[in-house]
Amino acid sequence: MGRWEPNARGRLAQAALELYAEQGYEQTTVGDITARAGLTERTFYRHFADKREVLFFGTEMAKDLLARTVADAPADASAMDAVGAALEALAAEFQENADRVRTRNTVVSAHAELRERELIKLAGLAEAMAEALRARGTPDPAASLAAETGIAVFKVAFVRWIDDPGRPDLPDVLRASTRELRTVLTEHASA
Amino acid sequence: MGRWEPNARGRLAQAALELYAEQGYEQTTVGDITARAGLTERTFYRHFADKREVLFFGTEMAKDLLARTVADAPADASAMDAVGAALEALAAEFQENADRVRTRNTVVSAHAELRERELIKLAGLAEAMAEALRARGTPDPAASLAAETGIAVFKVAFVRWIDDPGRPDLPDVLRASTRELRTVLTEHASA
Repeated sequence: MGRWEPNARGRLAQAALELYAEQGYEQTTVGDITARAGLTERTFYRHFADKREVLFFGTEMAKDLLARTVADAPADASAMDAVGAALEALAAEFQENADRVRTRNTVVSAHAELRERELIKLAGLAEAMAEALRARGTPDPAASLAAETGIAVFKVAFVRWIDDPGRPDLPDVLRASTRELRTVLTEHASA
Repeated sequence: MGRWEPNARGRLAQAALELYAEQGYEQTTVGDITARAGLTERTFYRHFADKREVLFFGTEMAKDLLARTVADAPADASAMDAVGAALEALAAEFQENADRVRTRNTVVSAHAELRERELIKLAGLAEAMAEALRARGTPDPAASLAAETGIAVFKVAFVRWIDDPGRPDLPDVLRASTRELRTVLTEHASA
């Protein structure tokens, strides 16, 4: 708790997350956050539009990571392989920060407004991957299908990871979910 | 325009959609809608919380249709077949009301707030199908994977349908997109 971080943004985010978890999201003011972080409100508003955005600034970094990993996939990688690599990179990032990700998820899950914001951000991640796929020559609908399906699988894997008391590894859960999706899609009676 | 519908709810929805398309969503008041429909504001608020909800009351019906179709699928149908049947039923419903669906989409697409609401409603549709799958014995993660992936494909198919000036049939586009997803998922270099 209160671990010093070398940047204002990170210190504010850390303080906010601690306070949201300790005393509740509604009950926490920007003043509480800056007091805990030892920074001014002016500094807070230089980094975040409001206390809600503290929970979502990571999404911009996630978007960049996904788009970059798709762009960097080998030229002969399929669209789904590129998406798989990107989502695995994101899963590894989540896994490395598992405690913070879990705390954040507890806060977000408890509020309809925050859950909704999360869905909107997820749609943005799919769009970022689809765009990166198009840029490397995957036409639509393959680009959109791969990106949207990838995010669908990530969502399911994330919930499994959160709910599993055995604290499995998120990249493992993601790979298993992708395999299971292939099975689900091929198990069918009709043509 | 102004076609008489036998129920207040339908008349209000029709009037609202016409006005949103003609004069803009922001510019339209509840008073404008009730004047066009020949009903009172009191009646409006008995049916809808606000002018935004007029655009989304169809989602509850969509949820019921999807859940019911999944539940009614043959016992030996796979999870993905049940989801496919449900989404085809919804696609057929959209196709039958193509003009209204297209007008509504034009209004929703033009406003970030409405696009966000749409995403939230879509997540609710996936959840309704996943629940119906679990009720007929499909365990998780297969139930969630089939439902989330189905919605991902529907989203992609819907955009293709909207964008295609040839005005194709939505159930056809949906079936084609599902086939393409199978290809996208199996075209892969790595294991």
